[in-house]
Formats: sequence, structure tokens, C-alpha cells
Amino acid sequence: MTSATSSIARYYANNEKRFISELVELLKFPTISADPSHDKDCRNCAKWLARNLSGIGLKSRLLETPGKPVVFAERIMDRNRPTILVYGHYDVQPVDPIDLWKTPPFAPVIKGDNIFARGAEDNKGQFFYVIKALEALIALKLVDCNIKVILEGEEEFSSHGMSVSLPKWKQLVKADSLIVTDVNTVNSGEPTIIMGLRGIVQLTVELDGPSYDLHSGSNGGVAPNPATAMARLIATLHKDDGSIAVKGFYKDVAEPTRNERKMANSVKFDKAQYKKITGVDPVGGEKRFSPAERLGFRPTIEVNGIHSGYGGPGSKTIIPSKSIAKITSRLVEGQDPDKMLGLIIDHLKSNTPVGMKLTLSDKHVAGPAIKIDAGSTLVKKAALVLKKLTGIKPVYLWEGASVPVITKLARTSGADTLFVGFGNAKHRAHAPNEYFEKKLFKLGYLFAAEMIQSGK
Amino acid sequence: MTSATSSIARYYANNEKRFISELVELLKFPTISADPSHDKDCRNCAKWLARNLSGIGLKSRLLETPGKPVVFAERIMDRNRPTILVYGHYDVQPVDPIDLWKTPPFAPVIKGDNIFARGAEDNKGQFFYVIKALEALIALKLVDCNIKVILEGEEEFSSHGMSVSLPKWKQLVKADSLIVTDVNTVNSGEPTIIMGLRGIVQLTVELDGPSYDLHSGSNGGVAPNPATAMARLIATLHKDDGSIAVKGFYKDVAEPTRNERKMANSVKFDKAQYKKITGVDPVGGEKRFSPAERLGFRPTIEVNGIHSGYGGPGSKTIIPSKSIAKITSRLVEGQDPDKMLGLIIDHLKSNTPVGMKLTLSDKHVAGPAIKIDAGSTLVKKAALVLKKLTGIKPVYLWEGASVPVITKLARTSGADTLFVGFGNAKHRAHAPNEYFEKKLFKLGYLFAAEMIQSGK
Repeated sequence: MTSATSSIARYYANNEKRFISELVELLKFPTISADPSHDKDCRNCAKWLARNLSGIGLKSRLLETPGKPVVFAERIMDRNRPTILVYGHYDVQPVDPIDLWKTPPFAPVIKGDNIFARGAEDNKGQFFYVIKALEALIALKLVDCNIKVILEGEEEFSSHGMSVSLPKWKQLVKADSLIVTDVNTVNSGEPTIIMGLRGIVQLTVELDGPSYDLHSGSNGGVAPNPATAMARLIATLHKDDGSIAVKGFYKDVAEPTRNERKMANSVKFDKAQYKKITGVDPVGGEKRFSPAERLGFRPTIEVNGIHSGYGGPGSKTIIPSKSIAKITSRLVEGQDPDKMLGLIIDHLKSNTPVGMKLTLSDKHVAGPAIKIDAGSTLVKKAALVLKKLTGIKPVYLWEGASVPVITKLARTSGADTLFVGFGNAKHRAHAPNEYFEKKLFKLGYLFAAEMIQSGK
Repeated sequence: MTSATSSIARYYANNEKRFISELVELLKFPTISADPSHDKDCRNCAKWLARNLSGIGLKSRLLETPGKPVVFAERIMDRNRPTILVYGHYDVQPVDPIDLWKTPPFAPVIKGDNIFARGAEDNKGQFFYVIKALEALIALKLVDCNIKVILEGEEEFSSHGMSVSLPKWKQLVKADSLIVTDVNTVNSGEPTIIMGLRGIVQLTVELDGPSYDLHSGSNGGVAPNPATAMARLIATLHKDDGSIAVKGFYKDVAEPTRNERKMANSVKFDKAQYKKITGVDPVGGEKRFSPAERLGFRPTIEVNGIHSGYGGPGSKTIIPSKSIAKITSRLVEGQDPDKMLGLIIDHLKSNTPVGMKLTLSDKHVAGPAIKIDAGSTLVKKAALVLKKLTGIKPVYLWEGASVPVITKLARTSGADTLFVGFGNAKHRAHAPNEYFEKKLFKLGYLFAAEMIQSGK
């Protein structure tokens, strides 16, 4: 163990209590970006973060966008030295179904090693260990490169504000390496380097029928039913074999290289473990691909919600006046997001059941997929650090999730990108009772400090 | 005009203000039978009705059932005279979506001729004019038959309590004629005699997938999606031509006689008017039948609601953990309700998508269809009275709705049944902003008084 490494570890031990208590403060902000009533909470959280970053020695400020403010902080020591850019997002997913939370989502609770709160893992817990690593490096005078931090407030809601603002921030975000921790390890908990993320587009589908809920007796068999119609429309999106039935949707899908496919399948997908964690067999998607291939190299169309008519106790004999469905589509390399959203829209239009008025809203093209070059020096360095910290050889994963703005940030900053995080499926990101583990917070801190210590 | 007829009309004019104010009191009880939290409100309403019936000269009491209490009242003048039995229900449909109500559903508001409240038409307004007709007949000493009134509290929720209790009330409900006003006139507002009602069965379908909402990126293409699965399951219930795809569902459907079909189609179905009232073209159901035939002689399977996952603003990238659908099926003559419910259940079981756990609940067999003999003397008398009161020849309608307990009540009481009511589609029964019209309340009163005046 180098002296730097042991200083960094000692700094953690001496400050852990404060680190966790600061994280708890951060988690108290109800920064739900999808809900405009939380705009103020988002801004307050951004201000809190700017203060925290100033406190550790970075020059910080809020960058205004058409959406939520972006926190930007930097510490330039020498323009000739390499620059590391850290990305994170302070916004979180909505909290419903709220009644399934055992403790309130924005009143963080620590039980044993676990910190329960919305955002505990995704992404507050995971970017905050990087900030604390920066604090340690600066305090210990171990930092030998320029540092930039960018924290957005709309990652769970299309990253629109940051995305449209990036072109004018080109100088600001210029960097050699981009570190993103908003990712998971494989289920087994093995250290993981993410080699790709899927892109994502979204839309809300509404079918309007009667102008009010009709009596299902006096109108059943005469009025068309928007609930049935939505079911029939959604059912046209997939074929029985689990593949997507939208015309042309697979046409531009880039096939993975033989090496990528081999690396992806080298991580054993443990079906029993998956069922144990999620409660469900891994039988979604296209039957003819392995789960790892389906996640890494194949697009999806997922229904995130359907709502129509009555859902309470007993029965209500109505034909509902309308129905809505929330849809997101994950894209892979080769697929142009605008084109794919267009194909989905065309499909919905041409399959709208008779008697229904189709309205499409919330149409967002969040971003395309991103794939990391297998020969990247940043990837190689991360592999060494992960092996050193955990004693385990890291696995390489083409992840199914999306960090929509990253492709754009990577391109604008000119930086090589590294995706390494320590979340995993057990932490219930996006679900009730989300949590993160203190021991993983520490591991993330140690990893970030080692990676940043000597610059690129 | 006979002297009796003019006395009855005068009595209305002298008491109208009180009649309406009593109706307003009745409408204030939030008697939602589907919601157990309103049990007390239902009982209080039943007590209020018993007092009102005692007040006009009937011997009244509450009959306990396994569900809500039934109000029973009678006035026996001579066991050798005919007995008329009046049926109604004091329970109402749920009120959601509550935010679409312009005034609170249980704070009745009178605007011009209209009384707005949940239950204003279905069925409080429609049975209360019969009670007020009884009041007038008794006060004017114009009643020449025995009178029985039975008001249940679970018609909107399967009529279970009354249905299972009827066998032991055989003597109590014995009657020659049964008058039911829980029905509509045709859209044009012409006086209408209902010649049949459909039967109904219901169930709630639940599909369980993941044990919590999963991240749609990290799991999309691997975990099966309960929202998509429910859509695909529901879509199997019908064929593209609008017919029901459940095996054997049409096998026992009784064909209407040529005369019945002719009478049904003699009522012009005004498509433009239907669209104006409901906001939708009459394009539901089986393409090869006319709207009147579809309503009167063909069964349906209607989805009254589907709910799964996120439905709020923006987007939430989840695979929902479960989905539910509320289903009711309207049955016609010949179809055994238990058998039909069984066929639907078999269909759902054999079409459940892979990876999903199917749970069926709220399974209720409310009752079979009922069809009135076209030669009934009660029907003939009603036709004369309606013509006299309105100047318009009544139309004969095989209605699509259901009053599940009526078949059983008709059989148990031994009575001929008459279905005449003055509701219509504009009154928004089962929907927000339900209302009834004072002029129709008066017409109902006059009709009921004429029908009951001389017994059978």
C-alpha cells in the first residue's frame, strides 16, 4: 500500500461520521425532477451542493438552463496538466407508490450499514463519494490534475436543460477524462466496468373515447372502450416471441463484435439469483438472445404505466372516457433516437383502434446509446485500481440502462469516458425503499481518490 | 282528465317544494356501496328512508342481510286485493374521478330544472318519486291495493345481501306486480318500456411480475413487464371484428324472435345524437349487429379499468411490479352466469403471459338476463298511461344495462315485472356531474301514481 493510499484511507476513517451526516442532509432534498412542484427543492439542493464544493476548495456556481440549474465547480492548478471531469445528477425518481415505503423517502434512515432514502444510491450517494474523495485529495495535497465537477438536476427527466446548454459550455467542460459513477456492478457484487449504456426515448400515449365515463350496461357493445383499445394498441408493439413489432425498428441495430459478445456472456447470468432479487424469472425480451445480450445489445419498448377507469375496491360498471400509457424505449448502438421515436409514433398512429382519438405527448429524445472502446487507457487503469481495492478481477458489462446526456457530454468535453459505480440491483433504484451501503460509499470514495489522484 | 288524476296533480303542485327538499336530504347520504368506509352512511340512509315511509303511512323496518340493510315497508289493506311491490336501491356508484365534479357529489345543487348529485337519477331520484306517489295516493285515499316497498343498498355492488336473503323473504315480497324504475328512456326522451335487461358477472384480474418496480433500463429485455402483459392478455378477449374471442361464449345465446328484433330496431338509433351526448361514435361491439341489437341481444366483455405503474407527469423509467384490470361482462337470455364467468376465467388462465402470476378476485355472479313477455297486461297498461301522460306512444326497448337482483325478486315474489323509468343518457349516471330533472321527477310521480292507483 502506497503512503498516498493509506493517507486517503485514514482521512476517510477520521471523517466518515461527517461524510455520512452530510450525505443525509443531501438526501433530505425532495429533488423529484419530473414534478414541477419540486422546482424550488431542486434549486435549494443545487445551492447546498455548490456550498459543499466551495467548502472543499473548488470554485463553484450554478449554471442556469431552461430547466433545473446545473452545479458547476472547478479547481484549475495548471492548464498544462490533465483535467478530470466528474459527472453526477442531484435529481431523483418520483416516489410513488408512496405507501410501499417503510420510512418516508426524504427522511433518510440508517439501519446497520444501509442508508434508506430516495436517491441514496441513484445518484446522490454515488456522486457524493466522489466529492468526498476530492475533499480528501485536496486536503492531503495529493491532487495533481485539474478538477471539474458537473451535477445536473434533470437526469431522471430527459436531461433537457443540460443537454441544450452543453454547446455553449464547451470550454467550461473541456477535459481529458470523464468519470461517471451513475452505474451498477453486476448482481454478484463484482467490481464492474460499464462498456456501454443504452439510449432512450420516451412518450405518453393517450386514447380519448367518450367525453365522460359511460354506463357500461347502457353503452356496452355500442361505445368503443378506451381501456380495451389501449390494451389492443399496446399489444401490437411486440410479437409473441418477445421481439418488437414496430416496422424497421431493428434495421439499424449494430451487431456487437465477436469479442464484445464473448466478454458480455463471460459474466455468468445467475437466473436463480435474479429471481431471488427481483421476484421474477428473466423471461422478458427476445427469446433468441441471452439476458446479457438482450440488456447490452438489443433495444426494448417498455410500458412504464397504463391507467384507465376504475381501480378501487369492488367494481364500477363504466366504459372509461380515456386511457393513458407511459412508454420508454431503450436504444442500442446504430439506432438514431429521433428516427426510432418516429417509427414508434408511426406505429401507434397506424394501429389506433377505431373510435379513439390518439394524443401523443411528453415526446423526448433523451439520447443515443454509448459504447466504450475496449482498448481505452482509462478502462485499463480502472481495472487495475478495482483489482487492487477489492482483490477481484473486474467484469466488463454492456449495461441496459441509460445516462442520456453522457454521450453529449463526452463529445463536448472531448474526454475519454469511464463508467464505474458501486450500485447494484438490490438497492432498489427507482423503487420504494431505495438504499445504499456505507461500505460501498467507502469503496466508491477509495476508487475515486485513486483514479483522480494522478490525473489521467 | 279523471278527478283522481287531477287530485294527484294538484297534490304534487301543493307539495313539490317539500318533495324536492326531501330528495335533497336523501341525496346527501354518501351511500357508496363499493367502499366499506361508507357502511355507516348506508345504514343512516336506510333509517332515514324507513322513517320517510312510516311518515306516509307504511309499516316500515330494516331487514338485515350479510351486507347493507334492506328497507322494507308495506301497507296491507285487504289480502284479497292485488299487491304491488316497488323496488329501488339507495346505494350509489363511486364518485371518482372526483376532480371532474363541478360541485361536490354529496352536496346536492339545484340549477334551473336540474338537481346535481351522485344518485340524483340512479336510483334515489327515480325511486323517490314512486314513494311520493304512494304518499299522494294514501293521503288522497286513492289507493285500492296492497303496497310493498323494498329498497336495497347494494345494487351497484352485486346486490349480494338482498340476493342471498330473498329465499327467506318469500312471504314478505309476495306480490302481483313488481314496479322497477331503475331504467332509462331512449336517448330521444320518448317514453320507454324496457322489455329486457342484460345479466352481469364481474371479476378483477391481477398480474404479478417483479416483487417491486424495476429499473426499466437495467431490467428491460430481461424482466417480463406486467403492464405489457396485461395489455396482451386483455387484447385476447376480443377479435378484430369486435366479437368476443372467449371460447364458447356465444354458444348459449338465445336468438331474439323476429318480432322482438323488429320492435328493437323500430326505435331509430340516432348516431349523431349518440355522438353529441357521449362524445364518441357508436363503433363498439360486433360490427354485424345494429346498435339496438348489440345492446339488447348480444353479450359484452367490458374493461372498466386498467391500472399499472406510473401515471403522473413526465416519465418514470420502471417496469411495474403488477397490473390490475376490472372486468364486467353483460349477458343475454340463454347464458348461464356461472358458466360464462367460468369460460372467462378459463380464457384468462390459458392466455396468461409467461412470467406472470394471475390472481382473480371480486368474482361475482350478479344475475342472469331478464326478458319481459311482450303480451304482459302490465306492459299494456303502462303503454296506455304513458301515452296519456305524454301524448307520445311509448317505445319498447331491450336495454343493455342490468338490475341483477330483479330476476330473482321477480321469481321470488311471483310478480309480473314492469320496467319503466325516466332517466336518460344525458343524466350521466355512474359519471361525474350526475343529475336528474325536476320535470322528469314529476312525470315519474304521475306515472307511478296512475299505475298503482287501481292495483293490477
